[in-house]
Amino acid sequence: MTGQHTFPKRITVLSGGVGGARFLEGLLRLVARRGFEPWTGSTDGEVPDGRVQITVVANTGDDLRLHGLLVCPDLDTVMYTLGGGIDRDRGWGRSQETWNAKEELTHYGVGLPWFGLGDRDLATHLARTQLLAEGRSLSEATEVLCRRWNPGVRLLPMSDDRIETHVLITNPASGERENVHFQEYWIRYGAAVPAFAITPQWAEHAKPAPGVLEAIDNADVVLLPPSNPVVSIGTILSVPGIAETLKGCPAPVIGVSGIIGSDHVRGMARQLLEVVGVEVSAAGVAAHYGSRTSGGLLDGWLIDSSDAAQLPRIEALGIRAEAVPLWMTEPDVTADMVAESLRLASR
Amino acid sequence: MTGQHTFPKRITVLSGGVGGARFLEGLLRLVARRGFEPWTGSTDGEVPDGRVQITVVANTGDDLRLHGLLVCPDLDTVMYTLGGGIDRDRGWGRSQETWNAKEELTHYGVGLPWFGLGDRDLATHLARTQLLAEGRSLSEATEVLCRRWNPGVRLLPMSDDRIETHVLITNPASGERENVHFQEYWIRYGAAVPAFAITPQWAEHAKPAPGVLEAIDNADVVLLPPSNPVVSIGTILSVPGIAETLKGCPAPVIGVSGIIGSDHVRGMARQLLEVVGVEVSAAGVAAHYGSRTSGGLLDGWLIDSSDAAQLPRIEALGIRAEAVPLWMTEPDVTADMVAESLRLASR
Repeated sequence: MTGQHTFPKRITVLSGGVGGARFLEGLLRLVARRGFEPWTGSTDGEVPDGRVQITVVANTGDDLRLHGLLVCPDLDTVMYTLGGGIDRDRGWGRSQETWNAKEELTHYGVGLPWFGLGDRDLATHLARTQLLAEGRSLSEATEVLCRRWNPGVRLLPMSDDRIETHVLITNPASGERENVHFQEYWIRYGAAVPAFAITPQWAEHAKPAPGVLEAIDNADVVLLPPSNPVVSIGTILSVPGIAETLKGCPAPVIGVSGIIGSDHVRGMARQLLEVVGVEVSAAGVAAHYGSRTSGGLLDGWLIDSSDAAQLPRIEALGIRAEAVPLWMTEPDVTADMVAESLRLASR
Repeated sequence: MTGQHTFPKRITVLSGGVGGARFLEGLLRLVARRGFEPWTGSTDGEVPDGRVQITVVANTGDDLRLHGLLVCPDLDTVMYTLGGGIDRDRGWGRSQETWNAKEELTHYGVGLPWFGLGDRDLATHLARTQLLAEGRSLSEATEVLCRRWNPGVRLLPMSDDRIETHVLITNPASGERENVHFQEYWIRYGAAVPAFAITPQWAEHAKPAPGVLEAIDNADVVLLPPSNPVVSIGTILSVPGIAETLKGCPAPVIGVSGIIGSDHVRGMARQLLEVVGVEVSAAGVAAHYGSRTSGGLLDGWLIDSSDAAQLPRIEALGIRAEAVPLWMTEPDVTADMVAESLRLASR
């Protein structure tokens, strides 16, 4: 950052779905509150005065091939949320949605009855699939889709290559162990079946999407929202080069805990942390990410006020920490929390 | 046929979209009126007494790859019409349809704005595409889709191989000649641009779908409904083996004219007949198909009462002909017309 009281011009955020999207909503609210405007123009030169460039690197490990279409839940949740197209009650999918195609698929007995596929949402997958078929990369297709939504951020997939998070579970019907797509574990089984391993399939052969490493290297601050540390942030970090670049980038890296007390705020992080053997607490996740002073990722870690007793333990790891209210109940409240993360960055 | 007053047990119909579907509706009405029930069980043994097996060989040259999905307009029109799912006013697509996905695609500026892609209809294409991706042939996928609709007929695509009808037109914007997909000529341009050639692309490498040739060879009567002689029946006949089998099959082949006076009843057959140099009249199309007595396709040809003056000319070709009312205004009226075609078969 260029100074303690100057708002950062370039902010890079690693994001999963709902939690990341709400965090970004708060960030954009804060940007507006400080009198700045989002900059989504050229990334080559300087960001003009009065503008803030926010780059979002989104998890694509939840992506699903369904009926020949590519479905990207996290990219879409961020795009819809920031573009005003989200269903606010569900937190995912389109507002004013209808479910006629899904109803018909049920009549045909084809498809995944547990997967929410709304008619308006379908158009996003149809458009994306067509753009890919025409030879565009996922980054390029995402850019085209964002022209309709104007999310106020530059939205990048973590990679243009196919990566799928697989979960080794005990199949509740057969009793056999099997690897299933993360969405099947998450939505079909509600993360309520025994799980033993989480694998970002094909990640070792993947490359970060164009602009991802540069966005981290050129940032004034890098923020990790309270997204799932295992299957959102963890999957992004599994793309070769991203974790290394974060560890070495000049900007401070500040995270926000998705764990309050001994459970997640939303989603199912608790179950997944248990699978990978991480203590389910704000301090446990901080230790899992590690301090940059000792080869880890974090310069700072924001935890909930109710977990303030954990502050000394986190500081002892070499990570600056603050305890503030973390519940993202509405964008103005979230903006306050984001302001605290930026304050921590410049501490 | 086994006798003049016996209803045929096996009827094979070559069909395009709307015209063929309405003809089949009339055929099924006639079957019911005569006290028979459709037989859609095994095709191996005998058709049980009291049952009539109707096999439909549908044109797939209008099929379209769109957003990664395979759209089969003629298969779907027949399936929806006979299964009670058609929008009767439009004649194509699903009843109680919504258009939310299409509206969103327009916002994205992706896709074909002139192509009708309803939300319920989309489910058929999604299901079909998934079935194909799982390794099923188009015939097999069609069979699965028909389980939901119970059309009362065995619905076969003319081929499991990709065939696309292309039309050489003058592009109205550039003035250049170009080959476009039939749907683009038909729907986007309303068949109102100059056209010079019609090609069933890749047909020469295609094989008839399993059961197609057998259905023709084993039929008691083969019927050609008033479907488009160029791009519906003509495209089916372009699949190697189908025209040859029709010419040699033991059953009578009876056609119904889609031309009344000097224009089509529905669709745009007139324009297409002009492209291929066929006289736009009932007798002109009969001559185009030709008589089986001289290497052609037809044993009989049903024309509209208003064209009765053409009867001698058609009979002179060696084709039995009758003039009866051909307007398929409702299934009971159509059933009368179909009864006339069967009477002509046993004449």
